[in-house]
Amino acid sequence: MLQLSLNAESPLPLVDQIVSGIRTHIDDRLLRAGMRLPPIRGFAEQHAVSRFTVVEAYDRLVALGYVTSRRGSGFYVAGRKPLPAAETQSGELERAFDNAGVMYQSLEDAPARLKAGVGWLPPEWMDEEGVRRNLRALSRRPDVHATTYGTALGYRPLREQLQIKLAEFGIGVQPDQIILTHGATQALDIVIRTLIQPGDCVLVDDPGYWNLFANLRLYGANLVGVPRNDNGPDPDALEALLQEHRPKAFFTHSVLHNPTSGNLTPAAAFRVLQLAEKHDFLIVEDDAYGDFHPGPATRLAQLDQLNRVVYVGSFAKTLSADLRVGFLACRPELRARFSDVKIVSCVSTSEFAERLVYLMLTEGHYRKLVERLQGRLADAASRTLRMLERSGLKPHGEPKGGMFVWAEVPGIGDAACLAGDAAESGIMLSPGSIFRPQQQPSPFLRFNVAYALDKRLERYLGEALPRFAGKCCKD
Amino acid sequence: MLQLSLNAESPLPLVDQIVSGIRTHIDDRLLRAGMRLPPIRGFAEQHAVSRFTVVEAYDRLVALGYVTSRRGSGFYVAGRKPLPAAETQSGELERAFDNAGVMYQSLEDAPARLKAGVGWLPPEWMDEEGVRRNLRALSRRPDVHATTYGTALGYRPLREQLQIKLAEFGIGVQPDQIILTHGATQALDIVIRTLIQPGDCVLVDDPGYWNLFANLRLYGANLVGVPRNDNGPDPDALEALLQEHRPKAFFTHSVLHNPTSGNLTPAAAFRVLQLAEKHDFLIVEDDAYGDFHPGPATRLAQLDQLNRVVYVGSFAKTLSADLRVGFLACRPELRARFSDVKIVSCVSTSEFAERLVYLMLTEGHYRKLVERLQGRLADAASRTLRMLERSGLKPHGEPKGGMFVWAEVPGIGDAACLAGDAAESGIMLSPGSIFRPQQQPSPFLRFNVAYALDKRLERYLGEALPRFAGKCCKD
Repeated sequence: MLQLSLNAESPLPLVDQIVSGIRTHIDDRLLRAGMRLPPIRGFAEQHAVSRFTVVEAYDRLVALGYVTSRRGSGFYVAGRKPLPAAETQSGELERAFDNAGVMYQSLEDAPARLKAGVGWLPPEWMDEEGVRRNLRALSRRPDVHATTYGTALGYRPLREQLQIKLAEFGIGVQPDQIILTHGATQALDIVIRTLIQPGDCVLVDDPGYWNLFANLRLYGANLVGVPRNDNGPDPDALEALLQEHRPKAFFTHSVLHNPTSGNLTPAAAFRVLQLAEKHDFLIVEDDAYGDFHPGPATRLAQLDQLNRVVYVGSFAKTLSADLRVGFLACRPELRARFSDVKIVSCVSTSEFAERLVYLMLTEGHYRKLVERLQGRLADAASRTLRMLERSGLKPHGEPKGGMFVWAEVPGIGDAACLAGDAAESGIMLSPGSIFRPQQQPSPFLRFNVAYALDKRLERYLGEALPRFAGKCCKD
Repeated sequence: MLQLSLNAESPLPLVDQIVSGIRTHIDDRLLRAGMRLPPIRGFAEQHAVSRFTVVEAYDRLVALGYVTSRRGSGFYVAGRKPLPAAETQSGELERAFDNAGVMYQSLEDAPARLKAGVGWLPPEWMDEEGVRRNLRALSRRPDVHATTYGTALGYRPLREQLQIKLAEFGIGVQPDQIILTHGATQALDIVIRTLIQPGDCVLVDDPGYWNLFANLRLYGANLVGVPRNDNGPDPDALEALLQEHRPKAFFTHSVLHNPTSGNLTPAAAFRVLQLAEKHDFLIVEDDAYGDFHPGPATRLAQLDQLNRVVYVGSFAKTLSADLRVGFLACRPELRARFSDVKIVSCVSTSEFAERLVYLMLTEGHYRKLVERLQGRLADAASRTLRMLERSGLKPHGEPKGGMFVWAEVPGIGDAACLAGDAAESGIMLSPGSIFRPQQQPSPFLRFNVAYALDKRLERYLGEALPRFAGKCCKD
């Protein structure tokens, strides 16, 4: 349902406001090609404007090429207009963003929508009060500057604290091998732009983290998916792929893999590292969800000690996504390259935010907070598993912790159209195809257990699954 | 003077601490190829360690290839070791970072060093108290979340406020044409990665903003400098360059140009836009320093109304560099491309920081703050001009405001070696060559008037200039 905020008091005519609002929805792919615009009468009543105004706005959108009119049937979003040639990046750019609409939907401030497929926890699960308390404490300290640039690598005491944190994972590292970044995403971005050139082959998890895929494509990388099994990346499949491809790097999740919540086993880790050695590629280990894991887990960086592995972490999921504090750890000469790129692309990260994370880590809040979240997630996960089974879905394995359940919709060719249907009912689902390197069809959905227990989801699944049973959903 | 922080209580042996500390200085180019390490005895006394420890550390650095030993003369930093082939980006990467060492020095937390060449104001000039007060106010508001992701474009009320701010500059824009970014640097970065491909020709100001040059090089752009004159980019020179080159874009500063503090005139603006139209290239107008300008000024975006111009702004220089709040404004279909790239490369920016800037803007603090800074800068600039003239330098034109004075060192071929000499006396200068697209020699220096009145600078110039007079300084 399209809801624009129109303002009759604005100097901008209502027609212009409608045109601009719908255009933005189309540009952001909240309205996608082929979707029907609301009927003129319905739109006029909902927004308390005259029907003539709506007709004029729709006509203008047709003239602009954003909308097509089908006689007797209504107005539909047109296919996306390409930019003039001089402004288009390679064709890869278009492909890179096939799924950006999912992220817009996730980030959109739409409290009424049930975000059952997002990759983070609801605000009410987070320690808002702890963050605010430390914010206030920090803003009272005379030695803290909130107005100047941070240092190139980021706040040193936090890097020293990360040294201790990584030592607990069995990863030995000096503070000067660590760079603080604008979230884990910027850490991955720095690695990519330093080491990947157009046309390079890059290995990724299949399924894996789709925002990473989009970024790799933006740099012209050629993505090759390494199938995951219950032990991590499948070493036999990896070995077979290496007969054909000469990858520059392998980007992978070891602990609480996104989207399956599976873990890497020591045996699989050993074989992956052996193959990396033999075929001389770098491994980038993204551990954004690892802190949710209860008890010890196997990380590639623990075996390899940052020789061939670049380790990426974040506090976005556990502490605050807003503070945008992530980091990478690597061997010294790579660190020097990476910090050059950090400076050139963003100058520095916020030392104030880094000090805040440091306070939360050192005052014991962090550990308690994470333990509390682990318990709450475990409870929500087991209830989500039961709900999904009741609804007729087939959860994949037993999640090892974390916020995701990866579940198959039996008898469906591709869950993407189920997700499209759910969106119209105000429920945001993450279909398996977006987690695949080439967006291949997938019968899976990723559920976020912190959102999945909302009654609306079970009700929707109960109503919708019979409609989709046996359908391939590919047109 | 090399100062490491050694800790005798640390489990890490002192030798390891020295090796790691010096290695980091070399990797970050605080120690550069050819520079001499402190004599063993001096280092030992300064750091209160035994001479054997220093000898062992220096020997280890020689073995690692970081340092060379010259018989009878001491230890010198070796040329930088190349990375193994598999890890090297194109040769452009190395060139892109020729000057990154300047930024490391600028960002380094070295209170004893006089940063007479940096591109921002000292912390004591900034409204620390205002920022902290609003930080506390914000952290008490129950409707503000400090733990969740912001929206794709950034906090909407701030974008609406920017619409008003840009309207004061005569630039008409809708909030949905604005993207909030992690500083102006990320805004420039987003434009570059969306529109520039390896091998593309890109026009830049000569002299101009060197961190931008490094980023463009990182993407493989071919930089062509457009000479600046007192009216802005020289239109005749630009026209001549366009006979030979087909640029994709022109990145330029219009108001209080960095490094000369000159302004664009309406006539030059008109000719630049005419040429952009005729030769079909985009203009990216960086206005990071524009708010320091007292009274009206000419901007390309004002004439062009964001048709061919992408406008970039920031609050880093006036309000807080730490908050990392910048923005870009552009026409709608470009905005859709740019926000895709923002999501893919950093997911979102900090809404908390954006709310803070919004508060500062709407409660009247910002305008008062900027007016106060303008007055203080004007006073410091006129005193800096007199000091530089007393010292025998030739300031370039009359600065129109802002924090920079661009001054020539008469009779010198390249001011870079004067800057190298000054660094050894604890004074950081910015030599003209780093502001040139190919780092061509330049007899100019950029001074920051907020730092330049420190007595140490006048004393140093008085002592050093006679030593450098008549020297080309190129070896």
